[in-house]
Amino acid sequence: MSKHAYKVVELVGSSTSSIEDAIQAAIKRADQTLRTLRWFEVVQTRGQVENGEVQHYQVVLKAGFTLEGEYP
Amino acid sequence: MSKHAYKVVELVGSSTSSIEDAIQAAIKRADQTLRTLRWFEVVQTRGQVENGEVQHYQVVLKAGFTLEGEYP
Amino acid sequence: MSKHAYKVVELVGSSTSSIEDAIQAAIKRADQTLRTLRWFEVVQTRGQVENGEVQHYQVVLKAGFTLEGEYP
Amino acid sequence: MSKHAYKVVELVGSSTSSIEDAIQAAIKRADQTLRTLRWFEVVQTRGQVENGEVQHYQVVLKAGFTLEGEYP
Amino acid sequence: MSKHAYKVVELVGSSTSSIEDAIQAAIKRADQTLRTLRWFEVVQTRGQVENGEVQHYQVVLKAGFTLEGEYP
Amino acid sequence: MSKHAYKVVELVGSSTSSIEDAIQAAIKRADQTLRTLRWFEVVQTRGQVENGEVQHYQVVLKAGFTLEGEYP
Amino acid sequence: MSKHAYKVVELVGSSTSSIEDAIQAAIKRADQTLRTLRWFEVVQTRGQVENGEVQHYQVVLKAGFTLEGEYP
Amino acid sequence: MSKHAYKVVELVGSSTSSIEDAIQAAIKRADQTLRTLRWFEVVQTRGQVENGEVQHYQVVLKAGFTLEGEYP
Amino acid sequence: MSKHAYKVVELVGSSTSSIEDAIQAAIKRADQTLRTLRWFEVVQTRGQVENGEVQHYQVVLKAGFTLEGEYP
Amino acid sequence: MSKHAYKVVELVGSSTSSIEDAIQAAIKRADQTLRTLRWFEVVQTRGQVENGEVQHYQVVLKAGFTLEGEYP
Amino acid sequence: MSKHAYKVVELVGSSTSSIEDAIQAAIKRADQTLRTLRWFEVVQTRGQVENGEVQHYQVVLKAGFTLEGEYP
Amino acid sequence: MSKHAYKVVELVGSSTSSIEDAIQAAIKRADQTLRTLRWFEVVQTRGQVENGEVQHYQVVLKAGFTLEGEYP
Repeated sequence: MSKHAYKVVELVGSSTSSIEDAIQAAIKRADQTLRTLRWFEVVQTRGQVENGEVQHYQVVLKAGFTLEGEYP
Repeated sequence: MSKHAYKVVELVGSSTSSIEDAIQAAIKRADQTLRTLRWFEVVQTRGQVENGEVQHYQVVLKAGFTLEGEYP
Repeated sequence: MSKHAYKVVELVGSSTSSIEDAIQAAIKRADQTLRTLRWFEVVQTRGQVENGEVQHYQVVLKAGFTLEGEYP
Repeated sequence: MSKHAYKVVELVGSSTSSIEDAIQAAIKRADQTLRTLRWFEVVQTRGQVENGEVQHYQVVLKAGFTLEGEYP
Repeated sequence: MSKHAYKVVELVGSSTSSIEDAIQAAIKRADQTLRTLRWFEVVQTRGQVENGEVQHYQVVLKAGFTLEGEYP
Repeated sequence: MSKHAYKVVELVGSSTSSIEDAIQAAIKRADQTLRTLRWFEVVQTRGQVENGEVQHYQVVLKAGFTLEGEYP
Repeated sequence: MSKHAYKVVELVGSSTSSIEDAIQAAIKRADQTLRTLRWFEVVQTRGQVENGEVQHYQVVLKAGFTLEGEYP
Repeated sequence: MSKHAYKVVELVGSSTSSIEDAIQAAIKRADQTLRTLRWFEVVQTRGQVENGEVQHYQVVLKAGFTLEGEYP
Repeated sequence: MSKHAYKVVELVGSSTSSIEDAIQAAIKRADQTLRTLRWFEVVQTRGQVENGEVQHYQVVLKAGFTLEGEYP
Repeated sequence: MSKHAYKVVELVGSSTSSIEDAIQAAIKRADQTLRTLRWFEVVQTRGQVENGEVQHYQVVLKAGFTLEGEYP
Repeated sequence: MSKHAYKVVELVGSSTSSIEDAIQAAIKRADQTLRTLRWFEVVQTRGQVENGEVQHYQVVLKAGFTLEGEYP
Repeated sequence: MSKHAYKVVELVGSSTSSIEDAIQAAIKRADQTLRTLRWFEVVQTRGQVENGEVQHYQVVLKAGFTLEGEYP
């Protein structure tokens, strides 16, 4: 982490295929409003099951974006 | 939790009567700006005391709202 | 806790009215199979929200029942 | 929390009716000796069960009292 | 999570190829006895190594199944 | 831990003489129903006191048994 | 903490000189948008090193601001 | 734990021979002033080493005594 | 930590200037009654903010004093 | 885990493609000096983001190697 | 802990007879390379079971040795 | 944190004057052997007290150094 000031937000993303996809989904969706996301940390990994099959993975992330980026 | 993308916020509400009221107070107040709140989780329960009586309960919540809801 | 041997199970109950009711719901429901429940500990308190109102409370419990009770 | 110096004690109270009553019971009882209790935080909520009914709730609190109050 | 009562069990699954496969293995195996599994949460991810290569991944899950499902 | 699928249960055992005895008591008692216990991890160590003497030790364990063992 | 409703945000500040400066940097920077910050709690203290010297300290804070303050 | 009100204190005891002895040492010593100790929970187990030999074990306990017991 | 028996108390101190001053304030104030304090551990660091400036730092400590010291 | 003595080290690996690759990278790299690595446990999963895309995953591991292996 | 600089390592020892023996085994074995070990803290206690009997105890320790001691 | 592989070590430093000095002392001392230290994280802050005055601060750090740096 560089010497910027950050704000940290908590996000939840989901995917039917993999944990990595669920992470990317959370970041992509958030990035529409938060253009300066720089890093994430996985807080929790979970999912839903039907008939003994994982239906989708859900990943809770903490994600940091630079405060500078808010004032273009 | 369904397969939506969520943002999670942390809120503090208080009530002079009960823990459930303090939860509801945090959610009601936040809901004026965050219309798509879907779930909460209690992070901490505390309160203030005077003359040996609880004056009010304070509850810290994590609350999730769907990101879709931000774009009506 | 007395000197019995215990098995500890994790249960989730819910109620539209209060945290205490959600605890009781988890215990009542479990007690149909686990007749010797002796104590519980709240692990997590959460709930669901619609239109800015709590719809129901959910409480996750660890609950201990005496192993002796399994062999009537 | 104001700028006083505090000592923090850990207390356990119980009630047959509610979590809030168990909190108040711990504080009331402690307040006979600790007249300057100012705030509490719930550390653990648990209880005892008999025949599938909660017999009483027990709440473990951290409670802070001002050190100034000890020297009237 | 809907308003059902749940029991939560802890499971360990393993796979030589991926974390997602280890999750699925735990759920599939448990589902033979626990037909109403609804969700899981990853508690721990680990694995075994030989000659500098991961031999298999092991994932510890908490998994919730509806109590209603036990009485067909 | 080998590559088996496990189920993890939580057990409480007690002994008037030592922590090791309390561990063994929990495992022995559980083993009457769970014949394939393979490992344990101590979650909590506590006990009861009377007249300034430890009356008995209580140990809370997580214990893993192979799911294969359930189908002889 | 008084009986207001709060929202809690997570912030990261940094300083080349001290932990206190890094705290103040996070708060000053955030305060440009969040004028009603009332309290903070340090979540993590870390930093970066070059040639055996600390280059800067980074402090992760939770910070609470009154929700009332958003509607002047 | 019965339905009494408790105060919980944190104690450290040590022994050159065993963990159980260190627990007993903490309780015995505290019991001179705190005559109504009822239970303990081990918070931390550590020790000191010299020349590759454990010199003594130190055990940190939380211990609960009934508040009633203070007023004989 | 030497082989003494200790009692551990939790203290909160505050200072307008630094974290170290808040630690010292908690210890000085407690030391009027607890003359045998030997060590402390920081449990939490927080503070209050006004107009974007830290007003004071608050530090929660666990502090250990030798039980021998109570009987001069 | 067998009955060997182990030393546990903490490692960080990274990969642009997956969490599993980041785990393998940490282990491969460490294995050049630590030839007797036997198991790992994931401590933290995080990553870096640019323009709304994950740039690389970083995984923090605890990894155990047998002490016997150090003396060939 | 005195005012030395320390490095902390994590070790795992095992014993067929007791927790104390497993601690001593970890320290003895490590001490062949780390001659200046001064203290340890138990991080986890676990073990393996066969036919309802504990086969051996495993203890994970954090152990601190003085850095000065490395340069005789 | 960049995309290097890291090893993480745990260090303890101390200072009679400030927390920042204790951090620097741990890093300086370790850096004689570990020339590629890049970042640290504070794990614990504590200290020793005599006659109601802090004698010295002790800071426990996790510190990461690049594995590449080991092979000059």
